[in-house]
This record gives sequence, C-alpha cells and structure tokens, in this order.
Amino acid sequence: MKAITESFVVPTRGKGTYEITDEVARILKGSGITTGLATVFVQHTSASLVIYENADPTARADLHRFFEDMVPEDHPGLIHTAEGPDDSTSHLKMALTRTSESIPIADGELQLGTWQGIYLFEHRNSPHRRIITVSLLGV
Amino acid sequence: MKAITESFVVPTRGKGTYEITDEVARILKGSGITTGLATVFVQHTSASLVIYENADPTARADLHRFFEDMVPEDHPGLIHTAEGPDDSTSHLKMALTRTSESIPIADGELQLGTWQGIYLFEHRNSPHRRIITVSLLGV
Amino acid sequence: MKAITESFVVPTRGKGTYEITDEVARILKGSGITTGLATVFVQHTSASLVIYENADPTARADLHRFFEDMVPEDHPGLIHTAEGPDDSTSHLKMALTRTSESIPIADGELQLGTWQGIYLFEHRNSPHRRIITVSLLGV
Repeated sequence: MKAITESFVVPTRGKGTYEITDEVARILKGSGITTGLATVFVQHTSASLVIYENADPTARADLHRFFEDMVPEDHPGLIHTAEGPDDSTSHLKMALTRTSESIPIADGELQLGTWQGIYLFEHRNSPHRRIITVSLLGV
Repeated sequence: MKAITESFVVPTRGKGTYEITDEVARILKGSGITTGLATVFVQHTSASLVIYENADPTARADLHRFFEDMVPEDHPGLIHTAEGPDDSTSHLKMALTRTSESIPIADGELQLGTWQGIYLFEHRNSPHRRIITVSLLGV
Repeated sequence: MKAITESFVVPTRGKGTYEITDEVARILKGSGITTGLATVFVQHTSASLVIYENADPTARADLHRFFEDMVPEDHPGLIHTAEGPDDSTSHLKMALTRTSESIPIADGELQLGTWQGIYLFEHRNSPHRRIITVSLLGV
C-alpha cells in the first residue's frame, strides 16, 4: 500500500477555469499505483474545483456566465469586500462548487468519464498562483 | 490493507434522483473491509451525486423542483445547447451538487446517518445508462 | 498502513457555521499518520460541511446571508415542510454545499491553506447535536 501527497502550482490569469487533469494524471503515473483513490484539493477559499465537460468550450463559457449571474460582484448586502467586489463573491462561488474531489484509480488510470476534465475554478479578477495538493492512496 | 475499484450501471428514466445506497453497500459487503473509506464517483458531466433525505419522498420532490427553478431550461444567455435545452443546464446542476462523495466505513458498514441515502441525480430528460465507480480502501 | 474511523459530536445553537478544524487535527495527531488522507463526513441531511475563510468573520456573515437569500424559508412551492419552514430549505442548502470533504495529509498535518477552516454548516433554527465522522488513511 502506498500513500503519497504531492503539490503543484497553477498560475491563473483571473476568473475562469483551468484544466489540471494532465498534472494529476502525471503524478499518478509517477506513483506506480494501479488501484486506489486520487484526491485533488485546492488550498484556497477564493478558488475551487469542478469536474466539467472538457470537449466543447461553450460549456465552460456558460459555467462562467451562470456563476457571475448567480453571484454578481454587486450582489446586495455583502459586507466582506475589503479586498474588492470579487472578495466575498469568490468565497461564495467556491462554497457552491468544490474544494476537494476524489477520483477512483483502476488499471493505473484515473477513472474519469470520456468528457470529464478536472478544472481549477479561479474566482478572483487578478492573476494568482494556486496550490493544488494531490493525495494518492492504493496498491 | 485492501484497495478495490468497482463499477456498476444505473439505468435512468430521465430527470430525477435514483437511490444507489444498496449497490454501494453490497460492494462494501463483498470486499470484507471493516474500517476505511468508500468513495462514490459518477463518470458523467450531466448527472451528479447527492446524499439526501431518504424517508419522505416530498423532500426529493422539492429538490427536483428547486433545481429546475434555479437552472431552468430557458435560462437566458446559455449557448451550449447543441444537444437541447437540457444540455448546459445539466452541467450546471451537476456543478452545484457533487461528482464524488466519500463515506467513512466502520464495523464493516457505511457510516451513513439514519436519514441519509446516496442518490444519482439525473439531469437529462431522456433515459441514460450512468456509470458509477466505487473505490474502497481499508482493512 | 493505518485505517481509522472516529466520530465526535458538535452541539449547535441553530443556523450558522461552527469551526471543527481543531477536532479533526486532534484526531489526526492521535493517529500517528504522517502521509495520507483525512475525510470529514457529516451524518445529517439538514447540516453540511464547507471549508471557508477563517480569518475575518464578515466572510461567514455573508455566507449565512447569501444562503438565506438563495433558499429563503418562504421559497414558493416547497411541500416538504412537516417539520417547519426550515425543513426542506435545510436539505437544499446542504445539497448546495458538501456532505463530505477530503483533505490530504503530509508531515503529519492537514494540508489546509493559510485561510482555510473546516466548518459544520447548521441549517436548522433550533439547536442540534451533529455527528461528524472522520476517516483517516495513511502511513
């Protein structure tokens, strides 16, 4: 049984989704694990994770727009805005998506479906360096 | 220490929730694991998972209706509609719920609360065959 | 390889967020695990989990208010209200956040970011005793 925890950094260019599937698959490949569980974790409260349709970019364009409509920067009544109008809203969008995501491993591969990609969802306007931590457990 | 990854198919009849607790419990029983972690993963981007109240069916009726109200098929501005008005909306409902769910194991049983059932949440109108992958880790 | 499943109770005073990071870290410390995965699970369908900004309390004030606005107790059309207007709404808020959350372990510590705290999110008005179950896997 192996247990590995490894991190990498994703530089973002502001709001949007950034695919990290290849980085997670690369860490799995290096581990030699064939059966088990990969858990992806984002070490931030103003960015999140989502597994989303990775074929047609219009799917993610709709995701970005829908979340802006649901949690707009001028949402009435927000008081946690010391860092700007994308401060509290970034935490709310994070809470509505995911901080951790776990993917089963079989035959040495992440058991993602055909159209599933793992994405970092950046909720701040300015570029950030986001730390992603991956836990691998298995044989 | 054991590591097992196993899949099963859930045939759906369109939008709604389909309980899969028994299938997951059956795979756990067959594994012989008494302490550890069960992770359920749905290999799709237009269906998701949710652990929900499993006693009174009106609870899930409200869930279905609430999500239709929040992400209606005629939501303005959506462009990812090549497969119909339930295309982008199905991905959005998925992003707002869960793709993976992890449940601790003790005494050979899933440590679910009294009213918790594991559900596949189908977001497409037409019937689909959905692949659920379960990872079991433990002793 | 170690596999540990342990539970603790969080008494709540009604709607709001209650930090449980220290309890989870304490269980990890007692396990002697240095590398692996900690999974936190809430055994209820009217309370949930969220990892949120733990520095400025205004961030969580906005979280509480936003969820009340999104899923108000007088939301039209809800029928699962046998236990009151906070019955179905509590399940809906739970579905929009998380039931399980997994955090990688390295160097014997939860790999949380600087501003991340693990919170129990209580959605009922009256005080409750909530069971949190923690699974630890690793070496």
